[in-house]
Amino acid sequence: MNRTQDRPVTLADEHARAWRPETARARFREGLTGATAGVAAGHTQANLIAVPADWAYEMLLFCQRNPKPCPVLDVTDAGATTTVLADGADLRTDLPRYRIWRDGELVDEPTDATAHWRDDLVSFLIGCSFTFEWALAGAGVPIRHVEQGRNVPMYVTSRPCRPAGRLSGPMVVSMRPVPPQHLSAAIRESSRLPAVHGGPVHCGDPSALGIHDLARPDFGDPVDAGPDDIPVFWACGVTPQAAVTASRPPFAITHAPGQMFISDDRDEQYRVA
Amino acid sequence: MNRTQDRPVTLADEHARAWRPETARARFREGLTGATAGVAAGHTQANLIAVPADWAYEMLLFCQRNPKPCPVLDVTDAGATTTVLADGADLRTDLPRYRIWRDGELVDEPTDATAHWRDDLVSFLIGCSFTFEWALAGAGVPIRHVEQGRNVPMYVTSRPCRPAGRLSGPMVVSMRPVPPQHLSAAIRESSRLPAVHGGPVHCGDPSALGIHDLARPDFGDPVDAGPDDIPVFWACGVTPQAAVTASRPPFAITHAPGQMFISDDRDEQYRVA
Repeated sequence: MNRTQDRPVTLADEHARAWRPETARARFREGLTGATAGVAAGHTQANLIAVPADWAYEMLLFCQRNPKPCPVLDVTDAGATTTVLADGADLRTDLPRYRIWRDGELVDEPTDATAHWRDDLVSFLIGCSFTFEWALAGAGVPIRHVEQGRNVPMYVTSRPCRPAGRLSGPMVVSMRPVPPQHLSAAIRESSRLPAVHGGPVHCGDPSALGIHDLARPDFGDPVDAGPDDIPVFWACGVTPQAAVTASRPPFAITHAPGQMFISDDRDEQYRVA
Repeated sequence: MNRTQDRPVTLADEHARAWRPETARARFREGLTGATAGVAAGHTQANLIAVPADWAYEMLLFCQRNPKPCPVLDVTDAGATTTVLADGADLRTDLPRYRIWRDGELVDEPTDATAHWRDDLVSFLIGCSFTFEWALAGAGVPIRHVEQGRNVPMYVTSRPCRPAGRLSGPMVVSMRPVPPQHLSAAIRESSRLPAVHGGPVHCGDPSALGIHDLARPDFGDPVDAGPDDIPVFWACGVTPQAAVTASRPPFAITHAPGQMFISDDRDEQYRVA
């Protein structure tokens, strides 16, 4: 499924880091693509999954029952293309790249989803761990995939989500290699942001999650770890895409992994304690 | 609507305080009634609202859009009478008192809802602020309504919830008078428990919430404040009942205000940071 070949936008691109959210959305609307880690510093990023209205209850229940991978930031009314998370945004055009799904199969990856949009689609915007990378970086935690100009690596795990009606599937995780001396800060800072996945679901041995080769992620790019780095795994908002693959709803539109919706919300709005 | 006349169970009743959750549920199943503040120390309490399956999506969306009053702890499958929150519990019998609603009107307040239960009911268990009272008490904050052996006072506010389809209505709040020297701890400790309403929505002048007379709560009992106490208002899980009154779904079963479901979960499971 990992077909996207975009050159990522990275923190090294100081322009993208300093963009206002509406600037980022306008650039993506014009056709710019790439992973959004490091874009529009301090603004909350979101995963997208839009499903037909007759699947909306099960998707919302799936999110409620699996809050670590699927923390819901907004749910639109059926047919709406706007969100309370960003003034003037158009969900059909303002993400860098989309995935179009029919019967659980990936059929297209356009940069504009307008031609595929339907009046019965309900859109779910789900918190993204790119959001807490600013807090990690602020606490001195190196963000390897950003340093290396790559998309974050993501893996399908052996851990099943709690099903909801017709929807089931495995949890997907993102992985960041963290030096041991920074592990405490990485856990502390991410835990303060439960709306964007919160603290990690696992630290250390990947096989505990059924991941056999960190060099071959299911989504995103492999990332080079430092010699003492510990792999740290966070629940990931690509999980609904794994549920689409496993459960085969007739139709869905999602973001391409790593290429997120950038909201107007500030990370601070979601910080607890 | 405030018809319940039960003598409350209080912290002064050391037996109830020390009960295991299953003991509390068994006593309520046998017919004991009363407000559950102070019962089964350290265990998470929950509001109940059960609606027909064709209203379940709108109820879940209403909760998602109003997370301060409606933090969802569990949603059952249609017709189920059990919950993942408590082993062996029966939602039809294990709360002290229920309210039965037809077309938005309160029609009965039984201690056992079995005769009213339907196979198409989806039950929502929503976090309750009684849960964080242990944390407040542990930080030295006096809990006036518990000291006075009364149910917590609750008020319908002038603040509208964000609607979801056919469901709309005002936010309901609970109020605790807090001495100024304890205000910081009350806010800090409750903020750490967002799953049970988190920090207060307002401190001070009740008229800011459209509340004109603290001595006349819409639910529960009036409580005597100390001379310098500040009224502190938390979003309340009775809010879905106000939505039932305003939106008139054909049928619903709820708990009676203050007479909660006591889960097996520990408060600690919901504490952040």
